[in-house]
Parts: sequence; C-alpha cells; structure tokens
Amino acid sequence: MMIPALVDIADKNDDWKVFVGSGALTAMVCALVYVATRGDRPRFTQRLGFLIVTSVWIFGAVVGTIPLYFASFELTLAGAFFESMSGITATGSTVISGLDALPRGILMWRSLLQWIGGIGIIGMALLILPVLRTGGIALYQMESSDKSDKVLPRVNQLSGGLVAAYVVLTVLCTVAYAGLGMSFFDAVNHAMTTVATAGYSTHDLSMGYFDDNRILATATLFMILGAMPFVIYIRAFLPRRFHLWRDPQIKLFLLTCLVLSLTIAITRRLINETPFIEAVVSSAFNLVSIITTTGYASEDYTLWSNAAIGVFFLATFLGGCAGSTTGGIKANRLYILFQIVKANFRRLVRPHAVIRLRYGNTDIAPEGVQTVTIYFFLFFGTLLLGTVILTMHGLDLITAFSGALTAIANVGPGFGQVIGPAGNFSSLPEGALWTLSAIMLLGRLELVTVLILLFPATWKD
Amino acid sequence: MMIPALVDIADKNDDWKVFVGSGALTAMVCALVYVATRGDRPRFTQRLGFLIVTSVWIFGAVVGTIPLYFASFELTLAGAFFESMSGITATGSTVISGLDALPRGILMWRSLLQWIGGIGIIGMALLILPVLRTGGIALYQMESSDKSDKVLPRVNQLSGGLVAAYVVLTVLCTVAYAGLGMSFFDAVNHAMTTVATAGYSTHDLSMGYFDDNRILATATLFMILGAMPFVIYIRAFLPRRFHLWRDPQIKLFLLTCLVLSLTIAITRRLINETPFIEAVVSSAFNLVSIITTTGYASEDYTLWSNAAIGVFFLATFLGGCAGSTTGGIKANRLYILFQIVKANFRRLVRPHAVIRLRYGNTDIAPEGVQTVTIYFFLFFGTLLLGTVILTMHGLDLITAFSGALTAIANVGPGFGQVIGPAGNFSSLPEGALWTLSAIMLLGRLELVTVLILLFPATWKD
Repeated sequence: MMIPALVDIADKNDDWKVFVGSGALTAMVCALVYVATRGDRPRFTQRLGFLIVTSVWIFGAVVGTIPLYFASFELTLAGAFFESMSGITATGSTVISGLDALPRGILMWRSLLQWIGGIGIIGMALLILPVLRTGGIALYQMESSDKSDKVLPRVNQLSGGLVAAYVVLTVLCTVAYAGLGMSFFDAVNHAMTTVATAGYSTHDLSMGYFDDNRILATATLFMILGAMPFVIYIRAFLPRRFHLWRDPQIKLFLLTCLVLSLTIAITRRLINETPFIEAVVSSAFNLVSIITTTGYASEDYTLWSNAAIGVFFLATFLGGCAGSTTGGIKANRLYILFQIVKANFRRLVRPHAVIRLRYGNTDIAPEGVQTVTIYFFLFFGTLLLGTVILTMHGLDLITAFSGALTAIANVGPGFGQVIGPAGNFSSLPEGALWTLSAIMLLGRLELVTVLILLFPATWKD
Repeated sequence: MMIPALVDIADKNDDWKVFVGSGALTAMVCALVYVATRGDRPRFTQRLGFLIVTSVWIFGAVVGTIPLYFASFELTLAGAFFESMSGITATGSTVISGLDALPRGILMWRSLLQWIGGIGIIGMALLILPVLRTGGIALYQMESSDKSDKVLPRVNQLSGGLVAAYVVLTVLCTVAYAGLGMSFFDAVNHAMTTVATAGYSTHDLSMGYFDDNRILATATLFMILGAMPFVIYIRAFLPRRFHLWRDPQIKLFLLTCLVLSLTIAITRRLINETPFIEAVVSSAFNLVSIITTTGYASEDYTLWSNAAIGVFFLATFLGGCAGSTTGGIKANRLYILFQIVKANFRRLVRPHAVIRLRYGNTDIAPEGVQTVTIYFFLFFGTLLLGTVILTMHGLDLITAFSGALTAIANVGPGFGQVIGPAGNFSSLPEGALWTLSAIMLLGRLELVTVLILLFPATWKD
C-alpha cells in the first residue's frame, strides 16, 4: 500500500492518506493475529490446509477492499469488495467506469492486487495444492515412476525461482510496452496485469486505447508467456532440464490458441472483410486474452459476428496451463479428459485390452483421474447454480450465465449488453456482486479447496 | 403409417396417398434389406451393437421424414428431417407453426413418431445399453452382490411387460384427458406425447389451448409417471418386488420437481402476485414439463421473471429417471455424481478411510463410475461444440446455446426470442436444423453410442 501512497503523494492527491491509513490498519491486524497465535504450531492436517488457503485469499480480498472503499471516489461496499476480489483473483471484471480520470494511486493499487494475486496463484498451484492433493501441476505426477522428473529438489529454491521468473517477465513486458510508446505508468500497470493474465487496465477502452497493432502483438506474446507453467522458466536454467514440449498441456494450449484465433480471423475476413493484418492481430489478441483468462479487449468483439461470439464463448471455459497465472478449466485437465474419454472408448470396443492413461512420459494415477473428474463436476455444478442465484437477483439469462462463467473461470468480461467487453459490472445489484465475488473465489481456489469447507463431514471428528 | 392414412381417409384429405405411398416404400426397403441380409448372423460385438442402435434410430428418422416431406404442406428437407428426428427422439421441438390448421393425419403421424420413439427409448435403456455397457438402468448394478435384485428373469417377459405398461398408461391418460373435455383426437394425441414425455401438441398454444388447470394437473401427473423407471410398473405385479423407494433416483427426481416447482411458485407469488392455485398448478406443469424433457408449455414462462428463467434453465439439464422415456442427464447419474463428489471430499479429509460408493443397496462398480463420468464430459463437450457450430450458422448466443442444450437433453423449447416457449424452430437456417437434428440423435443415444463410431480406433482391427 506504500507504493500507491507514494504515487498519490507525487501526484499531490489526498488519497495517499487512505493508503497509509489502510496500511497501518492492516499491519495492526496482522500484528495482533501474530501475537494471538504465537506458541506451538497446530498439527498440519488436510482440513487445516484447506482452511488456511481459503482464509488467506479472503483476507487478501478484504485488505484490498479497504483503500477502494475509502478512496475519494464512490463505491458501495459490495462494489469495492467485488473490485478487490476481481483483482486478487486476477479476474479483471470491474465495476468502475471512468478509469482514465481516476487518481493514479488507485489505478496502481488495482494493478498491484492483480500482480500479487498472480504470483499467489502460481505459488498455490506449485507448492500448496499438490500437498492438499486437489490439483495444481503435480496432479498427474503423483505416482510417477520416473522420480528424476521432480522439478527441483527443494521448495525454497523453487519459490525463489518462481518469483525471479515472474519479476523478470514483468520487467521485460514493461520495457517492451514503454518502448512501443506507452507512458511509463501505463507500461508498468499493463505489464503487471498482462503477466498475471489478469486484465485490469488504466483506460476504459482497455488495450484499445493505444490503437497500435504492435502493442497488441506484444501483449499477446506476454499473455501466452504468463499462461505457461512457470516451472519451464526455472528448468531453462538447469542443465538437461529444458523439455518445453515434454509437457503435453503446452502443445494443447498453443494449438488451441492457434486454431481458435485462425477460425476467428477467417470468419472476420469472410463476414466482415477485415483487412488481413488487423484480422490476424486483433483476433489473436482478443482471443488469447480470453483463453488465458486475462480479459483485455481492444474492441467489442461481440460485434464481429455470431460465429465470433460462439468461439469467444467456448474460449471463456478453457484457460491456460496448470502452474501458470490463468484460471479456467486449463489445458492439463482438458488433456487428461481427452485421455479418459479415449481410454473408455477403447475399453468399450476391446473389453480385454489393458489400457494405461498417460500424461507425457508419466502414468496418470487413479487419484489424478478422480481429481480431474471432481473438478469438472464442481465446475459445471457451480456454474449452473451460480446462474440460478444470479437470475434470482434479477439478472437476465445471458448476463447471469456469462457472469457466472467469467467469474468461475476468472476471465473478466461476459457476454450480452450489460457485462460484455464493451460494458462493465457497475449496473449489477449488490446481491449479484457478492455472489460473483464468491464465485471468483471458488474458481480461483479450484473449487474443491473452498467447497470442502462447506461439507459437514469435513468437520466431524 | 396406416393409422394416419385412415385418419386422412376419414377426413377426406388426399394426404392419405402420401402415407400409403410412404408405407409401401418403407416396406419395400425393409423387405430388400431383409432379403439382402439373410443367412448366418454375424458374430455380435460391441462395435456392431453401437452401429445397429445408431443405424436403427437414423433409419427411423428417415422413415418419419418421408410423409412430412411429401405431405400437402411445405417443409424443406432439413425441416422435415428435423421434425421427424425431434419426433422419434421424443424431443418435441417443431418447425411447424399453424398446427391447428394442419390435416389430422400429419398431426397423428407426429404424435405416433413420439409414441414409438418413447417405447424405443425405454427398450434401449433396459435391454440394449446395459449389454453395450454404456448406460441405461443397469449401470450401477453391474457388479451387484445382491443377485436377487435382478428385475426379471427373462428379457422376453420384460419387453412384454414394458409394452403393456406403456399402453396401459397411454390409455389411462387418454381417458383422463377425454373425461376432462378434450376431443377424442386431442386426447389420444396428447396422451401419446405425454406418456412419451415428448411434447408435440396438436395446437400452436400447446397445452395452453385448453385453458384448464385440471388438464394441466393431469398432464403433470402423467409426465411424472412417464419419467419413472418403467420396471417399477412391472415389479408392481410381482410378489414382494414393489420397492418404489428403494431406487434412490426416484426420490431425487421427485424432490427436484417439488423444490423447483415451489421455488417458481413462490417467486411468482412474490414478483407477479399470481393467484395461489394458478401459481402452483401452472408452475408445476411447466416446470415438470421441462424437467421430464416433455416440452409442453401452457404459456410463455420466460415472461414470468428472470428468476423463473434461471430455474427453467437449470431444469433443462436434469431429465427424469433412467429407464424412462425422458432425456437429459437424468436423476440416476446426478445421484451417482453426488456420491462421487462426497466420496472424494471424504477421501481428501481422511486419506486412510475406506470409502464405498453406494447406489441404494448396491455398490457402484468402478466401471459404472467411469460410464457416468464419460457421459458428463461428452454432454458438456457436445453442448459447447454444438453451440459454436450453431453460431457459425448465424444463430445468436442464447439461441445457439439453448438450442444445443434443448436438443442434447431432448427437451423441446429453448430460451430467447426465437426458440423460446412462445417461438419455434421454423426461422432457423437449414444448416442449423441439420446440426440440431444430429445433436438430438446424440443426446437420445446417450452420446457414447454415436460418438464411439466416429473414433478411429473403433474401426482398427
């Protein structure tokens, strides 16, 4: 909070007091919690793990809310909490219009929330969820026979490497944006929300504000880099460890981006007769923005054609790679789903064949199959129930369904007149904003982590 | 085809020639196929089973198309095939407006298609899919330790009982409708499409035409009876075999109908201030019509409120019980899904506990779990890809998504201005009608049966 405070002081904006006050309050609460919980650590159980992860994320969202709520522009509590949750979960949906006129401290705070959220997501996927056995990058490696495939010997070393990779990517992206003509402030903010595949912008027009195909292409590149499993950046510095193509999810993710971008580019050439370069660059940018769950838009792509809307709708489900900053179903799960379906088709036709489920060079453990399956059930169950709850708050079907979808996949924009890429979430009733905040949290924590806490048997002893 | 021919002769309508001609053509083709395939039966394999089931259903749709295409009113080939497929799969979506003015032979033909489709569905679920190990009522009984739970000793006896139960239900429903003031023709037609949970009406206003709460209540009852696993009607005549509540899907199905109907009734009381009796009866009728995948409507329920739309949207996925005439995901699969999720939550919290998946008094075999899982993947995969293909044909998102959904779940009406309960499918382009026909077939044959034929490894030897 000191960073936006310094920005506001430099700008002579009184909001610096809000940030310093919020920071003091947060520090005080943290100190009290620290004092109150000194002493022996409790025995670590799975249950405790789920509770800690969920609490940390909710605490982050609450802390993020404080300056947004007390700053010099008006947000309801529901709106400020929604904005903060959308930040820390790297979703990118916003209730604020008039971003261009906002104090730079607040803009910086929104970007920082997403940047911190982004590294939190990677850390969670690589270090915590595998321990809780609910997902993350290791779910298909749990019973690996090839023990040499362990990413790195020590967790500490891994965390350091992750942060380093994340910072380096952000710096590179900042330099690239600034080199292409963005102001330094815009470059830093967009670099943070690009690498975090999060999507907050400092302009209402999002990336469309800069009206520059080179910036769109650069953003596309860095969104893809942010959607990669971050271990590959660490592996790159280890001898004989750089096997980019060994992880099948990377191939699947890049192939999906390519095929869907081309599909949109072709429909735009055919239906809208868009010039070639623009059709390719802006199709790829907007589509990759949705697949990687970033949520930038350079224009209202829902005006291109119904065919384009269909492809963007599909893209909203997909997500990037496990171990990245992206949300959504993710390419590793989709790959495993394909393997499960293939194996079952084979089993039906040849009942006596022995079928092994493979992920790259690894066997997929039965537990990994179950984990993917459960995720899928919970994803669609939450999506449908979330839709019903949102209609109860008066939202029309397309806003409710696409709102629940964009929240659970942590994408950003929805579909329809209200929350489509040209709209925002400011007109939604407070109940809908609370509901969407909850769905964003559920989606970000890969559903099980939160839902298991609501399951009565979890608390029986 | 002789039945509608007789109706047309009685009405002095020249369409009788179309039916007699179509009947002669069909009989001739059947005779040729019979002659051409005499001799030794091929060895039965799973692969052959899938091919036969899929072919039979496509053949049925083609046969159903002939009179619709050549009758004295104008349908494109795509429209006639869509109408026939919607009939034989007991979906109930229609491209025809002006039903009230149509010759009675054609109306009778549409109802007959659905009625025949309905008994075909039950037969398939009880007798064929279990052999192919892809679904149906037996999927959770495959490794039953309680062998006494076998429904009936012999398949022949079972088929006879099924047809008897189906005919008796249809006759009872006809009598009830006629007793409540429907013309005999309307009563027979609606009884056939009620018990088949199929949804074709002889009036554009569907069941709303009769404007009678007693008829709506009767229809609700018979739709629920048609959505039950039909074995319970046979069991009722066997000593000590009548355990209605032993099958957990029945409880789940009835509970869902009750809760969702009440939810809608309450929102209508609160939002629309609808009179009590009307709120209860017409809410239950329209909701049960969607849950059981019948697809009748007594009015445009999408005008009630956004909350009502949300509940109807959810209901479109659900379906009735396995072993009934309904489509959709179905209560047995939903029950098993809940069991899988519960078991996995428990496993995460207590890694060393032994967890058994139970369906009533039976253990769920691992194969049953896989079958349910695969169905779920294929359902949502087909739904999303179907949506994209429909948008490629120019449909807007809500029409494309709800069209693919209503087709895959064999419900009937979709959402939105075009194909909602007040609209129909007549304005859709031909490509969209072919796509929807394919999705209806996929949904009706529980997806795997058709999709496995498109999987290259199925044909490798």
